[in-house]
Amino acid sequence: MAVRISTPTEYESLVNKYDTWMFDCDGVLWHGDRLIDGKRVLFVTNNASKSRKSYKGKFDQLGVEAHVEEIYGSAYASAVYISSVMKLPKDKKVYVIGMAGIEEELREEGVSFIGGTDPEDCTLEPFTLTNFSLDPDVQAVLCGLDLRVNYTKISKAFQYLTRNPGCQFLVTNEDSTFPSADGLLPGAGAISAPLRYALEKDPISIGKPAKTMLDCIQAKVNFDPERTIMIGDRLNTDILFGQAGGLATLLVLTGITSEQDITGPNASAIVPDYVTQSIGDLRVVNGK
Amino acid sequence: MAVRISTPTEYESLVNKYDTWMFDCDGVLWHGDRLIDGKRVLFVTNNASKSRKSYKGKFDQLGVEAHVEEIYGSAYASAVYISSVMKLPKDKKVYVIGMAGIEEELREEGVSFIGGTDPEDCTLEPFTLTNFSLDPDVQAVLCGLDLRVNYTKISKAFQYLTRNPGCQFLVTNEDSTFPSADGLLPGAGAISAPLRYALEKDPISIGKPAKTMLDCIQAKVNFDPERTIMIGDRLNTDILFGQAGGLATLLVLTGITSEQDITGPNASAIVPDYVTQSIGDLRVVNGK
Repeated sequence: MAVRISTPTEYESLVNKYDTWMFDCDGVLWHGDRLIDGKRVLFVTNNASKSRKSYKGKFDQLGVEAHVEEIYGSAYASAVYISSVMKLPKDKKVYVIGMAGIEEELREEGVSFIGGTDPEDCTLEPFTLTNFSLDPDVQAVLCGLDLRVNYTKISKAFQYLTRNPGCQFLVTNEDSTFPSADGLLPGAGAISAPLRYALEKDPISIGKPAKTMLDCIQAKVNFDPERTIMIGDRLNTDILFGQAGGLATLLVLTGITSEQDITGPNASAIVPDYVTQSIGDLRVVNGK
Repeated sequence: MAVRISTPTEYESLVNKYDTWMFDCDGVLWHGDRLIDGKRVLFVTNNASKSRKSYKGKFDQLGVEAHVEEIYGSAYASAVYISSVMKLPKDKKVYVIGMAGIEEELREEGVSFIGGTDPEDCTLEPFTLTNFSLDPDVQAVLCGLDLRVNYTKISKAFQYLTRNPGCQFLVTNEDSTFPSADGLLPGAGAISAPLRYALEKDPISIGKPAKTMLDCIQAKVNFDPERTIMIGDRLNTDILFGQAGGLATLLVLTGITSEQDITGPNASAIVPDYVTQSIGDLRVVNGK
């Protein structure tokens, strides 16, 4: 059973136990959150609509202190995966279903891409194969949250994945929904669902809970898993990610997961080490 | 094992065995096909992009003789299901992800609907919940093939299905792909996949292989299942549909299914009674 953290003393003993604190962002951090003094803080988010640079801008606005090198997004991790793990040759390309955040990270890693925000693919004109020419250099499809997803993008991605031999099917993350300011909306997992369904095949997923994301952090940051804690609001991404990496886990109840999801007869099988109402409560310990 | 039908004698004995011939359309019928004289012929299609009236127009163009009452499409069957099985009250509505064919059939059955081809929902402008007002009268979401599917439609459908108590999740059919003139494209099943994924729930499916489609035909036509044969190009829709309804089944190899799918070590577990290269070969028997 998860240990409840609510009193200042409980927080203080938790803070003393861990040196590296990995925070999920959406649904966890709030306006003006100041995190733990004297500890290494990393931000690990599945949100691929923003690049690390845009995240830094958002943090600045919210008053959350962060540096670009402390931010690990699934768009960044996907770009690193394609350039360093897949080792996509420089003359090959990725077809993107996704937004500017993915494109920025691919560009930074020197990965060529088509699709994405290209106006030609952001259209509701009926797609037919008559005028489509298959680009043989497309060797991967990368799919993330895309608020302008449409039949043309899905159909082009489907052509590459069925007709270009060896073309890889990658997704930034598999979150079924995401918490927008006014409520839940379909997430990146829902955007890639038509391709999964049409291909009858699961993609390689980069974001939490996949180990790919942790590999990406470990390549840049030296941390002791036993002295590291992952803080998040979602059991099947954040908490599972921490557990798979041998990290401690702290669930906050300010986002997706509610009290009912972790107690009672229908409680999830994924049990965090610790649970707390809100990460804002850490401020008490932090004296701010 | 399926019985091969290829010689005129084999065709003739098949024709003599069955009184009612149910034909799938896309991938089965071709320009100028004339079907079996003196037999009852019905057309049973999962294609929901066309109403029965539009199908009749297409048949006229192709030189295939057909009457509107002989055509059973998944759009029509969905409209009948909503009005006669669900018995949706007249003051309630359906939210449509789909094209004009679905709207025409709903209108003919007197079912109110929103969404579909409404320009307000056919947009790539980012959707937010801020300006969305939930219509409490929406008691079903009906999803079919929609070449203008987008995030606004998916998000609105998601809101109705999660926030309107008892709202039903219906799909015209679950075909993962469909054979366009120039090759395979993602099908109606792929269009509804984001909702399945975000809801973690399967919809009620109306088209083949579901029995709902056969119920719809049986309500209008009197036929003896033992003297009826279903002809189609897809094992997991057409052939399964025929088998579930106690009909004989004939697979044609002019569409989705290839020789490899029915022979060899990876052959499908769904075995038709008969298999033939093309339905055009029936003409030999028919003397045309």
